[in-house]
Amino acid sequence: MKIWNKEEIIARFDADRAIRMIEMGFIAYSRKAVLVPPIQNFFFQAANGDCCVKSAYVDGADTFAVKVSAGFYNNPAVGLPTNSGLVMIFSAKTGEPVGLLQDGGWLTSVRTAIAGQLAARVLAPRKVRGIGIIGTGDQARFQLEYLKPVTTCRDVHAWGPNAGQAARFADDMSAQGFSVHLHGTPELVARNANLIVTATPSREALLKSEWISDGAHITAVGADGHGKQELDPQIVARASVIVVDSIEQCSKYGEISHALSAGLIQQHALRELGDVLAQSGRARDDSNAAQLTVADLTGVAVQDAQIADSVVSQVA
Amino acid sequence: MKIWNKEEIIARFDADRAIRMIEMGFIAYSRKAVLVPPIQNFFFQAANGDCCVKSAYVDGADTFAVKVSAGFYNNPAVGLPTNSGLVMIFSAKTGEPVGLLQDGGWLTSVRTAIAGQLAARVLAPRKVRGIGIIGTGDQARFQLEYLKPVTTCRDVHAWGPNAGQAARFADDMSAQGFSVHLHGTPELVARNANLIVTATPSREALLKSEWISDGAHITAVGADGHGKQELDPQIVARASVIVVDSIEQCSKYGEISHALSAGLIQQHALRELGDVLAQSGRARDDSNAAQLTVADLTGVAVQDAQIADSVVSQVA
Repeated sequence: MKIWNKEEIIARFDADRAIRMIEMGFIAYSRKAVLVPPIQNFFFQAANGDCCVKSAYVDGADTFAVKVSAGFYNNPAVGLPTNSGLVMIFSAKTGEPVGLLQDGGWLTSVRTAIAGQLAARVLAPRKVRGIGIIGTGDQARFQLEYLKPVTTCRDVHAWGPNAGQAARFADDMSAQGFSVHLHGTPELVARNANLIVTATPSREALLKSEWISDGAHITAVGADGHGKQELDPQIVARASVIVVDSIEQCSKYGEISHALSAGLIQQHALRELGDVLAQSGRARDDSNAAQLTVADLTGVAVQDAQIADSVVSQVA
Repeated sequence: MKIWNKEEIIARFDADRAIRMIEMGFIAYSRKAVLVPPIQNFFFQAANGDCCVKSAYVDGADTFAVKVSAGFYNNPAVGLPTNSGLVMIFSAKTGEPVGLLQDGGWLTSVRTAIAGQLAARVLAPRKVRGIGIIGTGDQARFQLEYLKPVTTCRDVHAWGPNAGQAARFADDMSAQGFSVHLHGTPELVARNANLIVTATPSREALLKSEWISDGAHITAVGADGHGKQELDPQIVARASVIVVDSIEQCSKYGEISHALSAGLIQQHALRELGDVLAQSGRARDDSNAAQLTVADLTGVAVQDAQIADSVVSQVA
């Protein structure tokens, strides 16, 4: 079994290849051509941590993947990163372990940002007047970085609950060519942007419907488990188009679940990202400037399998 | 993260310590003090293989474990072992990976044999006139080896579907001090033994009720997934005492599931091994020589967590 550490993974990483493979993975997933066993979840109340095991096999692939990722929210106080994780790759021909990617959660961050890019590709307004980012942590940075290929807009409006972290976010993203405006409330972000990404571990709605302009698009990536929420369900109810990474997962948790359980929307209103990518490649009606659209991304194991495979299956 | 290969694991392995920790694990499991998320199962029809991911956290432990084990039944034809696997250990305080045990499935074999030993400890007749072993593969060898501490009997009656493998089994087990009689049918094994272990991947009953003597005990370890079966459900129906490693798992698959779905027994007749170990430590009525008893072992993730911890948590 070959073992790669995070530096080796980053050095080998080919973003275009990973994007293509994750796109193919979503398409396969929505065609029911991916074996995705139930997610294993652990909660560690005393340590304020959680962990999940996500596994996937794309029909006909040479390998399958098992990913373990953890978030321990007291870690920064002792000088450790919040997130950690690894991905293991096994042969689908013999069962033998093929590779261990000790990425420390980096691949999870990137595959989540790539899903955000794909959602923006099919749903973002043609003319983006401002990018809104709710959250200023690692995932907010990755989301913004991966939006670059899908819009020429570099005007960013951001809010984060931690002022010091927000200031570092503004500095770092400015260095990457963005013009970053930090705001004191999520409302001001929402009112200044029509392509909005929420990337927080919030357990209550941060965005209200009345702050969101007609014609905007919102991608919510934070609600990846039970009890998490970033959007007022009225936003979901108001959306003309709702795209989800997984109807099954988003109906259980994620933003969609709140709107579903409140009876504001019905499951048949949902479209899977893989289904959109396989068909027109565009889910927004560009002739209708008033359309509000929402993408809800909970994170599907096929993304983990595909991004890991994009690293492992490269010609050495 | 520390990495151990199979040779290092075997060199560090302390069987007594592992047995004690697995016993404690079963007790904790039956007290609902173990977090065991749903097992993830993969099937690879073209390659004739399967894989499962079993994870467990014992309340209050420093670590939790994620085990991946595979069985690919065409592997021997290309010179590879059928079974492979590894166990990962993570900190329950920070989520960080602590250890990787590249045991190739050895720990799974041993923890299964230890469960067999614990079942025999609480259920085997006081006087064993013959040990019966159905199956002559690796697990059959481990089961026999781990029965040594619970009986003085060294008379073994064995049957396996592959004559060459059975002959090697007889040679190797004779070298370990057993007197091995190979038989041409499971019936002759059953008629000559009152402590019987079945350890095959069979998908149909190999033992019939009429071959089993009053006063015998049978431990079935092969049926670890849907569709597998080694015992005629009438044997289960006839048993005075039925001990299972997990009521939940054995009711879904395992020998018990067949008897339950046929309406031959009811779930309240089952006792968990951890419950027996926590209480009297003996589930057979030794004053009743006619009692037939059955143990059904499907393999619980807490065994994997405990045996891995027994290796990792040793003072180096």
